[in-house]
Amino acid sequence: MADYIVGTMGATRALARYVATVRFGDLPAAVVHEARRAIVNWAGCAIGASGYPTVHNAWRAMRPFAGAPQASLLGRRERTDVLHAALVNGISSHVLDFDDTHPDIFLHPSGPVASALLALAEHRRASGREFLAAFVAGVEVECRVARAVLPAHYDVGWHVTGTAGVFGAAAACAQLLGLGEQRTVFALGLAATQSSGLREMFGSMAKSFHPGRAAQNGLASALLAEADFTSADTAIEGKRGFAHVLSTTVDIEQCTAGLGEHYELLRNTYKPYACGLVIHPAIDACVRFRDKMGVTAANVERIELAVHPMVMELTAKAAPRTGLEGKFSVFHAAAAAITDGDGGEAQFSDARVNDPVVGALRSRIRATADPGVALDAARAVAMLRDGTCHEVFIEHCVGSVSQPMTYAQLQAKFRTQCEPVVGSARVTDALALLDKIETLDDIGTCALACAAA
Amino acid sequence: MADYIVGTMGATRALARYVATVRFGDLPAAVVHEARRAIVNWAGCAIGASGYPTVHNAWRAMRPFAGAPQASLLGRRERTDVLHAALVNGISSHVLDFDDTHPDIFLHPSGPVASALLALAEHRRASGREFLAAFVAGVEVECRVARAVLPAHYDVGWHVTGTAGVFGAAAACAQLLGLGEQRTVFALGLAATQSSGLREMFGSMAKSFHPGRAAQNGLASALLAEADFTSADTAIEGKRGFAHVLSTTVDIEQCTAGLGEHYELLRNTYKPYACGLVIHPAIDACVRFRDKMGVTAANVERIELAVHPMVMELTAKAAPRTGLEGKFSVFHAAAAAITDGDGGEAQFSDARVNDPVVGALRSRIRATADPGVALDAARAVAMLRDGTCHEVFIEHCVGSVSQPMTYAQLQAKFRTQCEPVVGSARVTDALALLDKIETLDDIGTCALACAAA
Repeated sequence: MADYIVGTMGATRALARYVATVRFGDLPAAVVHEARRAIVNWAGCAIGASGYPTVHNAWRAMRPFAGAPQASLLGRRERTDVLHAALVNGISSHVLDFDDTHPDIFLHPSGPVASALLALAEHRRASGREFLAAFVAGVEVECRVARAVLPAHYDVGWHVTGTAGVFGAAAACAQLLGLGEQRTVFALGLAATQSSGLREMFGSMAKSFHPGRAAQNGLASALLAEADFTSADTAIEGKRGFAHVLSTTVDIEQCTAGLGEHYELLRNTYKPYACGLVIHPAIDACVRFRDKMGVTAANVERIELAVHPMVMELTAKAAPRTGLEGKFSVFHAAAAAITDGDGGEAQFSDARVNDPVVGALRSRIRATADPGVALDAARAVAMLRDGTCHEVFIEHCVGSVSQPMTYAQLQAKFRTQCEPVVGSARVTDALALLDKIETLDDIGTCALACAAA
Repeated sequence: MADYIVGTMGATRALARYVATVRFGDLPAAVVHEARRAIVNWAGCAIGASGYPTVHNAWRAMRPFAGAPQASLLGRRERTDVLHAALVNGISSHVLDFDDTHPDIFLHPSGPVASALLALAEHRRASGREFLAAFVAGVEVECRVARAVLPAHYDVGWHVTGTAGVFGAAAACAQLLGLGEQRTVFALGLAATQSSGLREMFGSMAKSFHPGRAAQNGLASALLAEADFTSADTAIEGKRGFAHVLSTTVDIEQCTAGLGEHYELLRNTYKPYACGLVIHPAIDACVRFRDKMGVTAANVERIELAVHPMVMELTAKAAPRTGLEGKFSVFHAAAAAITDGDGGEAQFSDARVNDPVVGALRSRIRATADPGVALDAARAVAMLRDGTCHEVFIEHCVGSVSQPMTYAQLQAKFRTQCEPVVGSARVTDALALLDKIETLDDIGTCALACAAA
C-alpha cells in the first residue's frame, strides 16, 4: 500500500486510486460485518424519523421539482429521483440524533455515504457486494479527510458530518460507478468545492440537512465526473484547496495513513438510547435494575446515581416538561429506564415525560457528580420499600468502543424504530435482507423493503 | 434606514428585513436601468456559452434526474425543472469569463442571482417588476455579505462568486416568494450553511460550477424556508456562523452599511472583450486605429504599445497556439483587434489564433511595460508602410468604472454572442423584451425569448 503515501502523488490522487481499486473480495470479514451493522443502524434511524416534520418539510419543498421515481425514500411510500432520494434519506438518518458516531472525529459516517449510495445503487441495480465495497470506500475516505483537518476544522465551526461527508458520498458513488482514477479525482474535487455545513445550525432543522445535502452533492459530484465534468487535480491538498481553506491544523498525511490496511469503519459506534451519550451509563444501570433485579416504579424507594461530572453539567434538568427537555434530564432518563426498560425515542416523547408514574419516580432519583467515575461508566444503588438494597456498576456502557452494541441489539433497535412506521412484517423482511446483504443480486430489493408499503 | 443597523438586531435579521420590504416602486430609476443592463449582459453570456462542453457535460450528467419542464435553459431547446434550470444557466453565465464584475469585491454578481431568479420567476409567472425588485435585493445582499468577509475570505482561497452568490440567490428568491422576515432569515441561514466554492478549481470546469450551484442552492434555500424548514437566526454573524468560520477579517457592519440607500449594483461593470481585463486598454487602442484612422493588417508596418506592467506579467505570450492561450497574449489581442475591430469570443478561437494574417500582424506588434500607465489605460503608436504615424491614448478603457459600456454596446455584445446560437430574429425579440422588462406582466415571455426555438 506504499502507493498511497501522499508524498509521492498528492492526497487527492492517492485517495482516488484507493477508491478505484477497492474490491469486495479484498475486504476482511470483520469489515464487511461492520458495514452491515452500520447499514442496519443507518436504515433504522432513517425509517424511524421518516415521518418527522424535518423530513416532511424538506420533501414538501423539493417534491414539485423532483424527477422520475427511480429510488426509494426510506420509511415512506413515495419514490423519487436518485438525487432527491439521497437528500431526503440523508436528512431522515440524522433527525433523531440516533445515528452512528466515529468517536475520534465527531463524525456520523453512514448518513452521507449510505444515503447517496443506496439511491444510486438501487437505480443502477447494483449487487449487495458492489454496494458494500463502495460503502466501505466512502467511509474510509470521509474519515481520513476529517482526520486531516481536525481539530481546528471542527473547533472553528464546521459540522464535519457535512464537510467530510460529501467526500465520502462522492467516493462511494465513484466506486460504484467504476469511474477509474482520473474521474474519481474529479469527483473528489467537485466534492471539495461543495464542502459545507456550519455548527451554527445546531438546534435547527438545518443540522439534519447537512448529511442529506452531503449525500446529494457527493452523488452529484460522481455523476458529473462520469460525464467528463472536470475539477482540480489537487482539490484536497492544494494551496487554495479544501484542507488549507477549511482548517488551520492540517495533517495531510492522515488522508492516506493505513489506507486499505487499517479500517476506520471498525472504530464506528452505535447508540442504544435516543439521547446524549453521557446519560447512557445511568440508563444501562437502571435497565439492569429492572431486568435482572426486579426493581419497579412501585417497589423502589430511592435510587442514588454516581456519575461523571459532565452528566450533571449537561443533563441535570430536574423537572423536564417536553420530550426534548427529557433528553437533558438524567433523572427522567433513569426513571423511564426503570418503568420501560429502555431509552428509545418513545421514552423521550412529551407524553412519557409528563406521565405521572414516571414523574413521581423521577423525584425519587438522586445523582451526584463523582470525578472518579469515567465518562462511559456509572455506579447506582436502588433502595426498595421492603428494605432490600441493590447495587450496580456499569464499567463501560453499551454502545461505547469497549462495549459495542451486539448485532442482536442493533436488530432490536431497528425493530423498535421501524415497526410503528412500516409495520412488523416489513421489518422482518428488511432485517432478513440486510442480514444477507452480500448475497443480494440487486440491492433494490433491500431498498424497497425499507420503504413503506 | 436606521432599522437596518446591525447592532440592534444582528446582520442576518437586518438583511432579511431589508429583503422582505424591497418594493419596485421604491427603486431609483438609475438602479432599475442598471439591473436591466446587468440582465442583458448576463443573458448574453449564458446564451453565448450554452453549447460549450462545460454546459453540455453538466446537463448530460443531471438530465436523467431532472423534473418537469418548468423553466427555460438559456440558448437551448430543452426545458427542465426550476432547480436544474438555475444550475445550468448559472454555469453557462460564467463559462466565457465574460460576465459582470463588481470591481471592489472580485464578485460576478448577476450569475447566481439572475440564474436562480429567472427560473423561479418563470415558473411562478412573476411580472417584470417583481423580477427586477428581487434581482436588486439579491445583488445588494450578496455584495454586502462579500464585503463583510473580504479580504481574508478571498485571499485564503474562497471563490466569492460561489460563497457570497448563494446568499444573493436566496435573498432574491425569498423576495420573489414573499417569504416575510422570519422565513427569509431561515433562507439566508440555509444559504450560509451551503456556502462553498474553492479557488483551487480555477482552470477547470468546476469554476463555472460555482455560480450555478450557488444559484441552485440559494433557490433551494428559499423554497425550503417557504415550506417551514428552519435554520439558525444568527447564521451570518453567530460565533459558529458564516462570517467567522469563513474569514479572519470580519467587518460585520458591512452587511448593512447604506442598505436601501446606497446601491452596490451601481458599481457593477461589464466586459467588452472576452479576455482578462488587463488587455482591454490595448484592444481599445487598436479598435480605434482601425475604425477611426484606417489602420489595417495590410497597411501597418509596426505597432508600439505602452502598457501597465501587469499586462506584461500576465499576458506576454508571444506565440499563442490555442484560443485560450490567445487570451494571455496582448500581441494576439491587438492583432485581432486591428483585423476584426473586436475582442470577442470569435477573436479568441483556435482558428483566429492560427490565422496566417493575424499571426503575421502579431509579430509586428511590440509592447513595453510602463509604470506611468494606469491599469485601465494604454498608449499606442501605429506606423504605416506609407510613413504615416498615428498615436492613441486610452485614458480609461471601455468597461471600466470611469468609462462604462453604454447600453447600446451591451446590446451589441448580446447580439454578437447570441446570433450564432439562437439566430437573428430571436435576438431582436429578446432585446426588445429586455428593453421593456419592467412592463412585462409575465417574465416568462422573456425567458422563452432567451431559449432556442
